[in-house]
Amino acid sequence: MRLVCLDLEGVLVPEVWISFADRTGIAALRRTTRDEPDYDALMRHRLEILDREGLKLSDIAAVIDRLGPLDGARAFLESLRETYQVVILSDTFEQFAKPLMRQLGWPTLFCHGLEVAADGRVAGYRLRMKDHKRAAVAAFRTLNFRIVAAGDSYNDTTMLNEADAGLLFRAPDNVIAEFPQFPAVTDYGDLRANIDAAFARLD
Amino acid sequence: MRLVCLDLEGVLVPEVWISFADRTGIAALRRTTRDEPDYDALMRHRLEILDREGLKLSDIAAVIDRLGPLDGARAFLESLRETYQVVILSDTFEQFAKPLMRQLGWPTLFCHGLEVAADGRVAGYRLRMKDHKRAAVAAFRTLNFRIVAAGDSYNDTTMLNEADAGLLFRAPDNVIAEFPQFPAVTDYGDLRANIDAAFARLD
Repeated sequence: MRLVCLDLEGVLVPEVWISFADRTGIAALRRTTRDEPDYDALMRHRLEILDREGLKLSDIAAVIDRLGPLDGARAFLESLRETYQVVILSDTFEQFAKPLMRQLGWPTLFCHGLEVAADGRVAGYRLRMKDHKRAAVAAFRTLNFRIVAAGDSYNDTTMLNEADAGLLFRAPDNVIAEFPQFPAVTDYGDLRANIDAAFARLD
Repeated sequence: MRLVCLDLEGVLVPEVWISFADRTGIAALRRTTRDEPDYDALMRHRLEILDREGLKLSDIAAVIDRLGPLDGARAFLESLRETYQVVILSDTFEQFAKPLMRQLGWPTLFCHGLEVAADGRVAGYRLRMKDHKRAAVAAFRTLNFRIVAAGDSYNDTTMLNEADAGLLFRAPDNVIAEFPQFPAVTDYGDLRANIDAAFARLD
């Protein structure tokens, strides 16, 4: 049985923090895992800025509500789910992802959770586990799935390595250069063709 | 993060083999895992009958195409997916499940595969693994999910045991009697209330 594991932000939906930075004008919030491979450092930085600016979960949620999937993402995902099982593996937080998941038809999502204080302040975050994308692919392998994974960032590369085949989608040049073993594509048609071809080679 | 694992047949859709037996008039195909806990014996019995009757995958698929989810199942599942992650764990085969998955909005499904000969005869089946429902719940636990599972049959009881909380839904009396540790409910409202209450106790 064949399973596709997809990253979320940058692959199916915009980068939430970048969109939030653009709408609030806080340039320091534009940093993502593409720029800072240390996820914990990145998150501490983000929460400090939210606190300093007095921004609450409701402010972030209001921006996310207006974001939609990337052009073509919904059709790509719908077609993919007709042929393969799909699980989205993301380092986002369930509170951020919910309006986007609704727009994508509620695909299964494994991610993390935010700690929200009674006054709506984002008090912290709970990683479900370290390197959970790689761990999820490894767990699916023990369940005898064939797995193709696709992502765009540093935090995807361990799951791409763990999968039977890994693909980079719209990855920045530094990631493509550092991980030449993964085919790099930039449009959904090529992504789907590479997924199909990878499974055909695995059969 | 919270994950619900659901059985498929008897919980969200009709028993495929029973429906097929009813439409073809082959009473011997009415046996299910409710009657025969040994799944391999049950499947050998089914494939022998299909062969003897000259029935091919296309005959079975034509029946399944006309089946729909159980009354209320789609609304129950849609609402559930808005609150929790959901993975369906079933001993069905992907070839049988596809038309029903479409009608349920393509939830993620872990199941098995059929071997279909060039002439359309169902030549055999490939279990992805033995006791895969229990194994999947155990794998999700290693990924730090809280898990509530619900099913109706013998082949669900190991996943109910493995989950943080297990529920029986429309189970036959013999299963309810043999597994009194699992609350038994018969309508979707009660099932949802029990799922919510189980997660509330786990927090």
